[in-house]
Amino acid sequence: MQKHIAVILGDGIGPEVTQQSLKVLDAVAEKFGHEFSYEYGLMGADAIDKTGNPLPDETLEICRRSDAILFGAIGHPKYDNDPTAKVRPEQGLLRIRKELQLYANIRPINTYASLHHLCPLKPQNLEGVDFIIFRELTGGIYFGNKQKAEDGSSASDSCTYTREEIERIAHLAFHFAQKPERRKKLTLVDKANVLETSRLWRKVVQDIAPQYPDVTVDYMFVDNAAMQIILNPKQFDVVLTENMFGDIISDEASVLSGSLGLLPSASVGTGTVLFEPIHGSYPQAAGKDIANPIGSILSTALMLEYLGMNEEAKLVRKAVEWTLSSKFVTKDIDPLNYYFTSTIGDLISDFV
Amino acid sequence: MQKHIAVILGDGIGPEVTQQSLKVLDAVAEKFGHEFSYEYGLMGADAIDKTGNPLPDETLEICRRSDAILFGAIGHPKYDNDPTAKVRPEQGLLRIRKELQLYANIRPINTYASLHHLCPLKPQNLEGVDFIIFRELTGGIYFGNKQKAEDGSSASDSCTYTREEIERIAHLAFHFAQKPERRKKLTLVDKANVLETSRLWRKVVQDIAPQYPDVTVDYMFVDNAAMQIILNPKQFDVVLTENMFGDIISDEASVLSGSLGLLPSASVGTGTVLFEPIHGSYPQAAGKDIANPIGSILSTALMLEYLGMNEEAKLVRKAVEWTLSSKFVTKDIDPLNYYFTSTIGDLISDFV
Ligand SMILES: CC(C)[C@H](C(=O)O)[C@@H](O)C(=O)O
Ligand SMILES: CC(C)[C@H](C(=O)O)[C@@H](O)C(=O)O
Repeated sequence: MQKHIAVILGDGIGPEVTQQSLKVLDAVAEKFGHEFSYEYGLMGADAIDKTGNPLPDETLEICRRSDAILFGAIGHPKYDNDPTAKVRPEQGLLRIRKELQLYANIRPINTYASLHHLCPLKPQNLEGVDFIIFRELTGGIYFGNKQKAEDGSSASDSCTYTREEIERIAHLAFHFAQKPERRKKLTLVDKANVLETSRLWRKVVQDIAPQYPDVTVDYMFVDNAAMQIILNPKQFDVVLTENMFGDIISDEASVLSGSLGLLPSASVGTGTVLFEPIHGSYPQAAGKDIANPIGSILSTALMLEYLGMNEEAKLVRKAVEWTLSSKFVTKDIDPLNYYFTSTIGDLISDFV
Repeated sequence: MQKHIAVILGDGIGPEVTQQSLKVLDAVAEKFGHEFSYEYGLMGADAIDKTGNPLPDETLEICRRSDAILFGAIGHPKYDNDPTAKVRPEQGLLRIRKELQLYANIRPINTYASLHHLCPLKPQNLEGVDFIIFRELTGGIYFGNKQKAEDGSSASDSCTYTREEIERIAHLAFHFAQKPERRKKLTLVDKANVLETSRLWRKVVQDIAPQYPDVTVDYMFVDNAAMQIILNPKQFDVVLTENMFGDIISDEASVLSGSLGLLPSASVGTGTVLFEPIHGSYPQAAGKDIANPIGSILSTALMLEYLGMNEEAKLVRKAVEWTLSSKFVTKDIDPLNYYFTSTIGDLISDFV
């Protein structure tokens, strides 16, 4: 097969982890006789430095004409600590989500027995944890009207949802819950006792639930969900939630895996799909060849699956599991005996 | 001393846990020669059932003429699962917060060595955990303008903060961080890379920080904070955050203590202060005499301190620690060998 892939290296450790994914893709191409062509686009602090714009239109065009997008990470501390900055790297990520209508961010939460010791939770609380979070990505308070008084005396953000925005991701999550390998349970996380938007979420999910009679639906307030993810994570199968709550609980849930550096995500919508590790730009580690490339490589596995290459994805996952169980791991996993980012990339592509 | 206390029993397990606190107060009064008078007010589902109003004006008047307010819990499932209900119990709690300008909810997060086994975290991650969350309670998305389209096609909530709203709670938190027993560190939790209101929070905290030169200030995005609370809770001393984020991370942090049933809180503002356990109405347990009264009793200890009765508060805490270490505990702590709510209340008041 021939596939054209948009590559956005982004900020911080984004470039170095994405490079490892590209090595793996090249190895997959060689082994299975595919042809992957790459086209690079700018986004984030990197794009601001080079063009003044956190998401140049050219990047969007590159993405639109690609079969999939592989993205690294975004963000730089010089913007974080300046609350008055006019242009910020994150605007690039928010805009690409909106422009490409990437309305669902999908994050599988898995645990690896060989990494249980890294997780602050007791191992018995981790066995059997296997859930997937569907986070709405193009609505809510991230994209609502923002205001700030000239004199700095007040500010506001508004959170809006339409029935359609909720329906489309809810259908996606319900379909997913019906898959043979899932446990047919969907948990909506909201704050319906306080927020009008949450009540709309609850109403819409209640309305469409009868179309999926084999799926059991649970409703959970976000404050309770933040506890339950730690207290009893096994209870979750498919979790559905709005943008801001999803940002918080999916990062929280990443703790269960033992390292943020391991988790992949896919952002799907009406057009080209974007794949990215859930970790951020981790600027302290940038350029040191110590970042964990597994989150990016597993995002690449999700991408291969999405491109219809199931065998290929399986092999990449097998290679990843082999490195983890052979203790070929980066510094975040083993601060004493660790391998470099680039070495892990080499090992995984050699395995493939 | 003579003190007049407004008592709001509320919903679910609210009444039975609060009754134990009243027993303890009576014992304290007898031992130390104080006189506590109680005046009861309605709020929540209980108030809706009896008056149609989740917070009758009379309750507010009772609160205003009291020296402190002791509150149980709020909420009932019949409202939670009806997204179209016009009147809801929580409106009572939100209104009392607003009317009495209870702008800061203060939640200490402690761990008890004797309860480490109950916490899903490994014990070594719990040692030395001791922080306190200052959650803004009368602003943000909880109190912003809410809208919903007649035809159910959309809904919105708006989140607004003024500089004054942020300043008053920030000063409170900075002062607290300066206390001799604290570690002089304040962490602002926000989402300044996305929200305009968060950028205002960050700006205001940056502006007033120089007035507290002995306090180190840290800024953390809420998604990262949701991870750090589990990964490395020892790093926190005083945490400051807005209303919605505070709701989520303070419930999450409660997991560290081993049981939600143990944690107290105080809501302070410009007038009478309100004390309540952080647990909710837990309707499944209501009326069964199995709920944990410690959250309420420790809230009562906070209240005694606030009323200037430090010795008394200390004794109540000592009594609580004695029951926990003697394994006189409720069902949430030990499902096999447990004591009733009322028995724990008796034991603690006898000890006093
Ligand atoms: C970088 C930031 C804007 C982003 C978000 O909050 O969505 C990130 O935290 C994420 O979860 O992808
Ligand atoms: C009952 C609910 C409205 C309330 C809140 O969200 O503030 C509760 O969760 C709390 O934290 O006190």
